[in-house]
Amino acid sequence: MASAPGRSDRQVGGRSRRRGSPASQPCSAPAYFTRKIPAYELLGEEGLVRLEEQADWILKEVGIRIIDDPATLDLLRQVGATVDGTRVRFDPGHVRSLCRTAPSEFTIHARNPARDVRIGGMNVVTAPTFGPPMVTDLDRGRRKGSIEDFRNFVKLGHVSPWIHHSGGSVCEPEDLPLNKRHLDMVEALVTLSDKPFCGTSSAPERALDSLKMAEIAFGAGRMARDCVVMAVVNVNSPLSFDHITTGVMKAFAEAGQATLMSPFMMAGAMSPVTQPAAIAQVHAECMAGIALYQIFRQGAPIVYGSFLTTLDLRTGAPTYGTPEANLSTFATCQLARRVGVPIRAGGRYTGSKAPDAQAMMESVNALNAGIMAGTNLILHAAGWIEGGMATSYEKYVMDLDHIGALGRQMQGLVLDDNQMGRDAYRETALGENFLGVDHTQRNFKAANYMSDLADTGPYEHWAEKGSLDMARRANRKWKDMLAAYERPPIDAAVAEEVAAFVARRKSEMPDEWY
Amino acid sequence: MASAPGRSDRQVGGRSRRRGSPASQPCSAPAYFTRKIPAYELLGEEGLVRLEEQADWILKEVGIRIIDDPATLDLLRQVGATVDGTRVRFDPGHVRSLCRTAPSEFTIHARNPARDVRIGGMNVVTAPTFGPPMVTDLDRGRRKGSIEDFRNFVKLGHVSPWIHHSGGSVCEPEDLPLNKRHLDMVEALVTLSDKPFCGTSSAPERALDSLKMAEIAFGAGRMARDCVVMAVVNVNSPLSFDHITTGVMKAFAEAGQATLMSPFMMAGAMSPVTQPAAIAQVHAECMAGIALYQIFRQGAPIVYGSFLTTLDLRTGAPTYGTPEANLSTFATCQLARRVGVPIRAGGRYTGSKAPDAQAMMESVNALNAGIMAGTNLILHAAGWIEGGMATSYEKYVMDLDHIGALGRQMQGLVLDDNQMGRDAYRETALGENFLGVDHTQRNFKAANYMSDLADTGPYEHWAEKGSLDMARRANRKWKDMLAAYERPPIDAAVAEEVAAFVARRKSEMPDEWY
Repeated sequence: MASAPGRSDRQVGGRSRRRGSPASQPCSAPAYFTRKIPAYELLGEEGLVRLEEQADWILKEVGIRIIDDPATLDLLRQVGATVDGTRVRFDPGHVRSLCRTAPSEFTIHARNPARDVRIGGMNVVTAPTFGPPMVTDLDRGRRKGSIEDFRNFVKLGHVSPWIHHSGGSVCEPEDLPLNKRHLDMVEALVTLSDKPFCGTSSAPERALDSLKMAEIAFGAGRMARDCVVMAVVNVNSPLSFDHITTGVMKAFAEAGQATLMSPFMMAGAMSPVTQPAAIAQVHAECMAGIALYQIFRQGAPIVYGSFLTTLDLRTGAPTYGTPEANLSTFATCQLARRVGVPIRAGGRYTGSKAPDAQAMMESVNALNAGIMAGTNLILHAAGWIEGGMATSYEKYVMDLDHIGALGRQMQGLVLDDNQMGRDAYRETALGENFLGVDHTQRNFKAANYMSDLADTGPYEHWAEKGSLDMARRANRKWKDMLAAYERPPIDAAVAEEVAAFVARRKSEMPDEWY
Repeated sequence: MASAPGRSDRQVGGRSRRRGSPASQPCSAPAYFTRKIPAYELLGEEGLVRLEEQADWILKEVGIRIIDDPATLDLLRQVGATVDGTRVRFDPGHVRSLCRTAPSEFTIHARNPARDVRIGGMNVVTAPTFGPPMVTDLDRGRRKGSIEDFRNFVKLGHVSPWIHHSGGSVCEPEDLPLNKRHLDMVEALVTLSDKPFCGTSSAPERALDSLKMAEIAFGAGRMARDCVVMAVVNVNSPLSFDHITTGVMKAFAEAGQATLMSPFMMAGAMSPVTQPAAIAQVHAECMAGIALYQIFRQGAPIVYGSFLTTLDLRTGAPTYGTPEANLSTFATCQLARRVGVPIRAGGRYTGSKAPDAQAMMESVNALNAGIMAGTNLILHAAGWIEGGMATSYEKYVMDLDHIGALGRQMQGLVLDDNQMGRDAYRETALGENFLGVDHTQRNFKAANYMSDLADTGPYEHWAEKGSLDMARRANRKWKDMLAAYERPPIDAAVAEEVAAFVARRKSEMPDEWY
């Protein structure tokens, strides 16, 4: 068990927001948010202990399954777990103690150092939706995702002020073979943006390809020192880790790179239907995954990923932004903080099929809950629609607007003399308005977050401009953003080496489509 | 200064949720929410004290204006304020000490006792939008409000499970004379619903009319004991109370009835543009209004009303659900709790002209902030659109859905043995799903809030049903609700006496249209 690059970060701490020089940045916004407001604490000590005891009970009495991976079962036996066939049980407190070597904060480096992101602590990092097979826009409608769509979404992320991390499978390029598309996806992530990105987690051999491509992009030896790539790994909930999951985790842990460890929990299907049970199970699964990662490599950076939502039990369909899911977000973030690792929670989730009022209601609820709960990493922050079945161009830019607003909200109130504005009263006769006073002139530009999608004017102006609803305005906006996209600089030799690697790997395998 | 009916409530406390028998209720939901989750505390003690000191500074150094009301100036002089022309100044702490006689909680009685609402403490009461001159729906478009629309909205509120209080001017009936329409409005509120309602605050003589109608509805002498009607009174911000405002306040205070005291604050116009300054000014204006009310009648029930939003300073248009407005909601609720009076904050605000994604984004943000902040009363909870210029039929029912969801969220998590669901694990083989287990069957009906507007199914089903977005589904829903409306029982003699009063008052005045 070697020590991973991220490990020393626990001691280092550090919450400063990094800013690159304007010329090196694709946009003027900071590389990530640093929150200055407290997290919402839904539960008190008694409730948290009760949930922790339940997680301990699950890990002791129910256990987890390790499927088709005898080597990992051996490692678990060696650290003192009770292995019975594929079932692994842990004494109370054991799993949590195995999590202790995971760093509380770490940096994911970007090709552009001004775009490095800091995961954990008071920092908040956004990444777009991950995994949809379909894409949709108001012009062309709903269709299978293509590599062209994939590249478009990487470009949108690159020019977006409120997307900090490029994510990974922003949509699945269904026009490419299943066993090779990861090569084109990672190539696009490496070359079309200089923000940090995800590696591949669909299979261990693909994970290794993506790690190799990261090594080309960042230079030989760099990954021994720095975290430059992250895998998004789902637990096979309930309480199971198959050999693909553990294989991808091993590949990333051994390379000293990061994993976002996420149960995929719909209460009533992958867990009991009641939220407290589901929350405790998320906690058990996350801690088990983090412990495994630390067994694979002590100090390897990992994120506690809460993805817990509800089902419409009339239809069996997953539901998003629901009050029960929001309560779970609050509680899981509290539990994760007590483990001492970075937290992923919140996202712009919706079950709506259109970029409409339902989409916004559910997404705003879900993201607000994550932000208030104190999330550090927001996956699915932009583009998610239709329960994650599709990435929507219009929804993507609508989501950006809400992220920007919450970025401002997280800055809180500054209670200094300027903000108190006593001079404004001295300038104004009692009862008169403040529109023209010096204090207003001095402060109005910085006072408020300015949405570029909201229509704030009177009805008549809106009607004159064509009565466009927000989705129609978003349709214009993403086209403007793509038109404004400029490819960030990249060393030609690096780009060539990445392309050569992709070509070689493709030539080594026959196409597989399912 | 007589003692008002509400006063003893401060001692009584009481947070039980009242439920009438099903037969006496227009819907199955409780008469109001009782929150079981903590409020979000944005600021610590130091920040709150800083804002309180700023409010004291405003009241001492800037003062308030009392316009065209020498009698009130005399009363203020008698309690020790410094009166200089129309300007009134207060020593630090004086205004807050005058607020002490206001009750921390009180009940507003309804014609149907099962629909009484409790204002303050851990209780949360909703009322629809107030004041729009226009109405809009997807069939007939945007138009001036009429008495027919007004009656429709009273009916929608009556059948809505998530509207607790009928409100007042759900839209302005612009087809009726300005000086008489309050009579038709209050008659509709009294007779078409049995939920509590607002009296009239557009002029002191109209306030007296509405109080007289409440007396007819509740019986002679009842108002000496109980609060049965509430006025919504705006401060003439900045820092001014004209004789209409003080006249309406006097009428309601002397009748022992309630007032919602609300500054109408758009930072940058009615206050300095910076939020801390605006928050402190809201606090100063609210406390001044509450103090005045207590001077008019000690113990008269009053609500601290925060309405503080932002301006788009590029266009001068008010903006809603913005991060700055949300931060102000958090802070003002904290300040109000320290005064010890019920708080009005949050609302389904938006500047959008359509029931679209923007409308939902802004409204969800604004209402979430109010709920998280610990509001007791939510005015403009349903129907608000276009910055309060119009009441939207579709938005009304979309708003209901979000209120219902937050009602569930406020119930929090119950950490008992059933919710922990250990028996579900005992029934299930490790790794199998929980859909069919007894625990799921036993709990699924109560586990989750069920939206009746969200479309949760797969894309194909949605497309087969006509690809209706949420606004279109809402269009069907409000028609269904109006079709399902049944007039609640009312004593025929009372209805006749109300009608006779309306007829008599109308005959006593010539029509006035502006």
